[in-house]
Amino acid sequence: MDSLGFHSIAALGRLYASGAVSPVEVARAMLERIERIDPRIDSYLTVTADLALEQARRAETEIRRGNRRGPLHGIPYAAKDIFFTKGIRTTAGSKILSGFIPDYDAAAIEKLNDCGAVMLGKAGLHEWAYGITSSNPHFGPVRNPWDRERIPGGSSGGSAAALAAGLCAFSLGSDTGGSIRIPASLCGVTGLKPTFGRISRYGVFPLGHTLDTMGPFGRTVEDAARVYEALAGRDVRDAGSVDRPLAPHVFAPEPSLTGKKIGVPRNFYFDGLAPDVEASCRQAIAVLEELGAELVEIVVPDIETYNFLHRLILLAEASSVHARRLRDRREDFGDDVGMLLDQGLFVTATDYLNAQRKRREICRDFNRLLAAVDAIVTPAVPLVAARIGQLEIEIQGRKENVRLATTRNIRALNLTGLPLLSVPCGFGSEGMPIGLQIVAPLFDEGALFDIGHAYQLATDRHMRRPPTAA
Amino acid sequence: MDSLGFHSIAALGRLYASGAVSPVEVARAMLERIERIDPRIDSYLTVTADLALEQARRAETEIRRGNRRGPLHGIPYAAKDIFFTKGIRTTAGSKILSGFIPDYDAAAIEKLNDCGAVMLGKAGLHEWAYGITSSNPHFGPVRNPWDRERIPGGSSGGSAAALAAGLCAFSLGSDTGGSIRIPASLCGVTGLKPTFGRISRYGVFPLGHTLDTMGPFGRTVEDAARVYEALAGRDVRDAGSVDRPLAPHVFAPEPSLTGKKIGVPRNFYFDGLAPDVEASCRQAIAVLEELGAELVEIVVPDIETYNFLHRLILLAEASSVHARRLRDRREDFGDDVGMLLDQGLFVTATDYLNAQRKRREICRDFNRLLAAVDAIVTPAVPLVAARIGQLEIEIQGRKENVRLATTRNIRALNLTGLPLLSVPCGFGSEGMPIGLQIVAPLFDEGALFDIGHAYQLATDRHMRRPPTAA
Repeated sequence: MDSLGFHSIAALGRLYASGAVSPVEVARAMLERIERIDPRIDSYLTVTADLALEQARRAETEIRRGNRRGPLHGIPYAAKDIFFTKGIRTTAGSKILSGFIPDYDAAAIEKLNDCGAVMLGKAGLHEWAYGITSSNPHFGPVRNPWDRERIPGGSSGGSAAALAAGLCAFSLGSDTGGSIRIPASLCGVTGLKPTFGRISRYGVFPLGHTLDTMGPFGRTVEDAARVYEALAGRDVRDAGSVDRPLAPHVFAPEPSLTGKKIGVPRNFYFDGLAPDVEASCRQAIAVLEELGAELVEIVVPDIETYNFLHRLILLAEASSVHARRLRDRREDFGDDVGMLLDQGLFVTATDYLNAQRKRREICRDFNRLLAAVDAIVTPAVPLVAARIGQLEIEIQGRKENVRLATTRNIRALNLTGLPLLSVPCGFGSEGMPIGLQIVAPLFDEGALFDIGHAYQLATDRHMRRPPTAA
Repeated sequence: MDSLGFHSIAALGRLYASGAVSPVEVARAMLERIERIDPRIDSYLTVTADLALEQARRAETEIRRGNRRGPLHGIPYAAKDIFFTKGIRTTAGSKILSGFIPDYDAAAIEKLNDCGAVMLGKAGLHEWAYGITSSNPHFGPVRNPWDRERIPGGSSGGSAAALAAGLCAFSLGSDTGGSIRIPASLCGVTGLKPTFGRISRYGVFPLGHTLDTMGPFGRTVEDAARVYEALAGRDVRDAGSVDRPLAPHVFAPEPSLTGKKIGVPRNFYFDGLAPDVEASCRQAIAVLEELGAELVEIVVPDIETYNFLHRLILLAEASSVHARRLRDRREDFGDDVGMLLDQGLFVTATDYLNAQRKRREICRDFNRLLAAVDAIVTPAVPLVAARIGQLEIEIQGRKENVRLATTRNIRALNLTGLPLLSVPCGFGSEGMPIGLQIVAPLFDEGALFDIGHAYQLATDRHMRRPPTAA
């Protein structure tokens, strides 16, 4: 039963349909794996075993009676611990909310309940979802399943690590400046940041309200698509929610990208990469070409300016959310997040508003680029996962701040609202996963799915299991 | 021909239809009046006589051929000098733009061109539309037609004064914190601030982008409605523009308010009024009751808190618009506006964003109040027009800052986005006009029109002519 930890949603669905395996068996197997393996990586903050078994039993009964609700029925998942869960502690990775028990479910959790999915528990994260290490000062570090001494990335580190270690079949995260794509890359799973406004943020602790985007981690692109389709849709309770048509994506059975134009940036995104990251990404792009895609060289605008703009906007928005707590309980914030939020209090409204105005330019630039190609590909994170506690890293002989280097190719794109996917594209010299970032036009998640899926069918790079997870 | 200065749009339309008077005759009469009378009140910054005559001739030809475009065809108007006008100087009341000639028309001007309206010129305003006196330091004060030593109110002072003095048949203004309702009240004309998002702001110099609302001044409520209907509608070029159905309002021939519930605040709005303002407004409300309305006592939230919130939001937004000019050309700003904008640079993003969050509460409160009544009435401005240069005023024995007193009942409501109307409701002890403010539910401009029109039909208070205008 232990291999159930690594089945895709589609594979589990087939097992359920044939009666070969039941949702309760899968839930039990997952809970057993969590008990045995999670102490090595600490990806869960809270395990909801009773709830999981109850939900699995209900799914089992319904499926046995022929009432299969859909692809997520009976499928076990983990939710980043900033999604409110009724009656279940929701910490946001903070000391301040360490005893907080919401009296309602986040919209995403509501939707998964309606689909009959099975919640295994709440996944660890960077404090208040504001950082890339998930080395939480209050709950201890989440560890990378590929090397326990390394970070899983953040802020949704627990969600990615749990999935990579076979401790759930999919998971939920949020991405404000890379918090899905970074841990997806560093843990070797697929991570989707949908178009801004696609998935309701109702009942999710906010970080940056003009940037926050909810999304799934999946073992495959197809899995991520199924979860995305279950979650997407208009919700009047989220002021950023949009009402746009959405149809289930139809995946091609054979990998082909014939007729697709894929933009490959000439400037910025391939600068200063660790050599193993560059090699893996170049190789992945060559695969896309072999699959029939036409590669188009493109020139992107000055991304570092927009990375700075993103930092300023996020500092301001995050500090406004935490202003009262910073005044009353400053000592209960961890060092790194507390210092960021202190800085944010000094951002002026003039700088904030003019950054929001300037932001329109990167939107225009990328919308223009994406009018001529179906998608753009870039290396996701320029380096493999750093060691826990490591602040500086040397890339190509240059010392760099780990936080800045890790977010460099990721962060500015959050300003655009575009849908973004990170797919595993190999392993570095130290056996650590590497991710490829795909950028598609607004509301065209389908382009991400087509490209990511074709790549995965052609390579199967995404199916290896990390050493800690046996 | 001189009496043509005081005809309503509807009356001019009838004269055009019968052939008794032509658009060219009206335009000539208006231009002659402007030349003779405007030196007393300085309501126009720029008179576009050639353009007006050209547009009037075209309208005359079309109407004579039976191609009447609608109620505004051939009707002469003035536009506040922040509406961009192609090839015509647009100063925003500033020294910095005193030589600025836009190469395109604002959306509102485009629409009026399409209606065949006749632009007489650009009306004076408070510098950058940021103040209530219209005592412009660069172009001199606009004067109140009812008393040349008094302010017309602001910031759209020239638009209201020109209309009150019979120097146009309607005019355009903008209202960010009262800039239509205040001059409408102080000059004795009808002023409409529509629901936020109804009228495109494309091509209008911004002041506070989450507050700015374009709207008309009319000699009657019916006139204001006709202009509003010509201007309203979705425009993708304005990020705040909304797409909501809109139908021409049908005005009842007889004044009646039977079946209408009108909320009258018990707290705040009647506190600290000048006695003549209180008397006029109470009398107007009694007229509404006589017309059949049911008066309902209501309790409003703490408006002073929201007045403060509005000031903070506007300071921040205005300073962000002017940040570069403040750095490079601070000496070219007038004293009062320059000092406000200096202050705004110090507003933090945290305070700004949390003010925007708090703003939702006044929206919720007023939406709730307006679920139980058709409209709410309040005195518009607690005092009649102050003297030019006057900074303090005594009301009921208490010294008050003119700016704060003038905006007290007006400002907070801009936070709500609700449609707001100011209708003349009599004259104070010094012969100065007084206005009643009417508040209706979002997108229900029709409720404002019904109540304002019934009141005007019943009283005809709006038809007196100011002494300077003969």
